[in-house]
Amino acid sequence: MLDAREAWARSKARDADIKAWAWLPEELACPPASDLQGPLAGAGLGVKDVIDVAGMPTRSGSPATSAEPARWDAACVTQLRAAGAVPIGKTVTAEFAYASPGPTRNPRLATHTPGGSSSGSAAAVAAGMVDIALGTQTGGSMIRPAAFCGVVGFKPTFGRVHRQGMSVLCDSLDTIGWFSRTVSQSQAVASVLLPRGEPQPEPARAPRVALLGCETIGQLDAASRQALDDCVARLQEQGATVAAPVLDADLQSLLHIHTQTMLAELARGLQPLARSAQAGLMSPVLREAVKRGLDIPHADYARLQRARERLSREWRLRFGEVDFIVTPSAPGPAPAGLQSTGSSVFNRVWSLLGWPALHLPTAVTDMGLPVGVQWVALPDQDHSLLGWAARNAGQSMHTGTN
Amino acid sequence: MLDAREAWARSKARDADIKAWAWLPEELACPPASDLQGPLAGAGLGVKDVIDVAGMPTRSGSPATSAEPARWDAACVTQLRAAGAVPIGKTVTAEFAYASPGPTRNPRLATHTPGGSSSGSAAAVAAGMVDIALGTQTGGSMIRPAAFCGVVGFKPTFGRVHRQGMSVLCDSLDTIGWFSRTVSQSQAVASVLLPRGEPQPEPARAPRVALLGCETIGQLDAASRQALDDCVARLQEQGATVAAPVLDADLQSLLHIHTQTMLAELARGLQPLARSAQAGLMSPVLREAVKRGLDIPHADYARLQRARERLSREWRLRFGEVDFIVTPSAPGPAPAGLQSTGSSVFNRVWSLLGWPALHLPTAVTDMGLPVGVQWVALPDQDHSLLGWAARNAGQSMHTGTN
Repeated sequence: MLDAREAWARSKARDADIKAWAWLPEELACPPASDLQGPLAGAGLGVKDVIDVAGMPTRSGSPATSAEPARWDAACVTQLRAAGAVPIGKTVTAEFAYASPGPTRNPRLATHTPGGSSSGSAAAVAAGMVDIALGTQTGGSMIRPAAFCGVVGFKPTFGRVHRQGMSVLCDSLDTIGWFSRTVSQSQAVASVLLPRGEPQPEPARAPRVALLGCETIGQLDAASRQALDDCVARLQEQGATVAAPVLDADLQSLLHIHTQTMLAELARGLQPLARSAQAGLMSPVLREAVKRGLDIPHADYARLQRARERLSREWRLRFGEVDFIVTPSAPGPAPAGLQSTGSSVFNRVWSLLGWPALHLPTAVTDMGLPVGVQWVALPDQDHSLLGWAARNAGQSMHTGTN
Repeated sequence: MLDAREAWARSKARDADIKAWAWLPEELACPPASDLQGPLAGAGLGVKDVIDVAGMPTRSGSPATSAEPARWDAACVTQLRAAGAVPIGKTVTAEFAYASPGPTRNPRLATHTPGGSSSGSAAAVAAGMVDIALGTQTGGSMIRPAAFCGVVGFKPTFGRVHRQGMSVLCDSLDTIGWFSRTVSQSQAVASVLLPRGEPQPEPARAPRVALLGCETIGQLDAASRQALDDCVARLQEQGATVAAPVLDADLQSLLHIHTQTMLAELARGLQPLARSAQAGLMSPVLREAVKRGLDIPHADYARLQRARERLSREWRLRFGEVDFIVTPSAPGPAPAGLQSTGSSVFNRVWSLLGWPALHLPTAVTDMGLPVGVQWVALPDQDHSLLGWAARNAGQSMHTGTN
C-alpha cells in the first residue's frame, strides 16, 4: 500500500486542485519503519474530519467547531495505527457529515462533485494520494462518493466499528467505513477493524444473488443501468443464480423511515449549536434540516423505530438464503457542479437496516466518469461480502489510472 | 422543584461530607427568573460528569481526561435548559462510568456506598441538594444508586435520549437517565427529554403485572424480599393480576450476553487510552476489563448480538400483554464500605434489552438504609410506566427525610 511519506508528499503536491484535505501537517510525524508492523505496515491513512486524530483538529466541516487539536485518537484510528497505518491528515467532510459540501473536486473531472459527505476521503483515494481512507455513512456518505470517484467503498454492519472519538449525530445510523483502491485493501482494513470475524472459506460454489433494481425509488441513467446489467450478466456467466424480488412498498417505507429517523436524530444532536450564539454559522440547508427534525414528535419517532425493527426482521428472513444483493450505488455518474453531493436514494435503505454495503467501480463513461454497482449482504456477513467481491475483482474492476 | 440558587447553596454547604460533586462553580451563573420558562423553570440540575455542560470540565472520573471546560452543552442538557432547568455542577461518576468508585458517600449512612456509577447524582438528590440529576446506565449505573440512596431513578428506552455530548463507551448499552425525589418530578423530566410521547390516559383499570423474582441469578436479602412482596401485595389489593413466569435460562443467557457485550465495547472504546502514555492512570479494575474485552473475538461479539436480538424479540412477545414487570432493584440495601458500588445483577438484563426501568424506594431498614423495587416496561412504554408508578406513588413512596 502507498507508503505514508509518499502519500503525504503526493497530497502536498496535488491537493491545490483537488482540495481533498481539510488539514495536512506541514511535516509528517512518521514512526521509524521498524515500529510499523502489521497488515497495514507503513500505509498512509486519510481520516474524515469527523473522526479524531490526536494532535490534529476535528472541524466536522463547520466553522462552529473548535480548532484545538484532539487529545486522543478515535478508537478506530488507534486500531489502524496498531496495525501499522499512519494517519497523514484529515479529509474534507460535508458540514457535520450532512449535506452542505466542502470544496473538494472530483479527481476524475474537476467540474463534477466527488459526492459526499465523505468527499475528501473518496477523492484522496481516487487521486492516488492515499490507498486507504476512513469515512462515515448516515445516508449515502460512503457509497455515493465511492461511486462518483470510482473507488472501492465499504460500509460495514452497523455497530461493529466502535465510534468513540467520532462525532456522532445520528446515533442509530452513523457508521464508520473505509475507501480503498482495491477490494483486497478493503479486506486488509476489515481484518483490523472487524478482526477475527466469521471464518470465510473461499466459496467453491457459484453465489446465490438477489437483484434489486429499485426502479420505483429512483431512476437509473443508461451508463449505470448498463453497469448493473453487465454485473448481473457476468455473475450469471460464472454460474450465479439471480433472483429479482419485487419489494416496492417496503423500499418506500424504508426510505421514509430513514428520512424521518435521520432528521429527528440530527436535529436533537445539533440543538446545542442551533440554540447557541454560533447558530448563524450553520448552513441554510442544515438549519432547515434541524427545523424539520424538531417538528417530528417523539411518539412518531418511536413508532418508526418499531416499524424499522419489524422490516429489518422481515428482510433478514427474506434474504436469508442469498449470498449478496446487487443493486445500484447511485442514479448515474457524478453530476456536474459542486453545490450538491448528489442523490443518496439507493444507499439509505442499507444505512437504515445497518447491512454491510460495498461499492465496486466497474466502468467509465465517455466523459471519463466512473460508474459501478453496490453489493449488500446480511448483518455480520462483512468478510463474506468482501470475499465474494475479491473473487470477482479480477474480471470487473476499473479503479482508474492511478 | 428545588430552585437552582438554593440547590447550589445547599450543595456548597453540605458537600464536604457527601462528596456528590466533581465540580461546583464558585459562583452560580443563573439567568434571571423571567428567562426561565417551562416545566422545569428554575430547577437546579445535577449532571453526571460524563455529560458535557458548557463552561464546566468533563472529567469522567478519570485523571487522564482534559480539565478544559466543555465548549457545548450535551444535547440533553440543552433540552433541559430550554425547559427552564439550570445545571449547577457536575456530579461524581465512577471511572468512565464503569466500576472504580469516586469519593461519594451514601447520604443515608455515610459508611455505605451510594452505588454507582452515577454515584454523585443519586447522592445529590438523596441529600436534598437538587431535586433532579442526570445519570447514565450501561449495567446498573442508574437503578443501583437510586436503590442504595433511596431516590426515584429512571432509565428510559435505549436510543430515545440523544447522546451527543456524552462520553459513550458501550455504544449499544449506554443510556442517559435521571434521578428525582418523586415520580412526578421524573415525569416532568420525561416530558422534556421524551416529549410528546405516546398519549397515556390515566388507566381506569387495574394493571396486568409480571413478577420476576430472579432468584436464580441473585440472592435477595430479607428487607429487599419484603419490599418486593409488599409491592406485589399492594398491587393485588388494588386489583392487579400478577403472573410469575419462570425464565431462568433466558436470564442466564441475557446476563452472559450483557457481560461480554459490555466488556467488548468498553475495551474497544478505551483502546486509545490503554495504548497511550497515560495508560498508567487507569485503575487496575478498568485495565483488567479492557484486557478481558480485547480477548473477545469479533465473531463472538457478532454472534452474541444476534442472540440478543432474538431474545429481545421473544421477550417483547412474552411480555406483550403486561403493563409492567416488578423485579428487584438490588440484592439488598447499600453494602458497607466505599470500595465497591455493589451488585448490578438485577439491572443488567434491562440494560441489555434497552427496556425502560424505574426504581421506586418503598421502605427503610432498621439501619436507616432504603430498599425498594424495580418496575420495567416494554420499549417506548416510558410514559406509561411512569404513569402507573405515579398512580401508586401516594401509597408506596419513602423518599427519606430531605
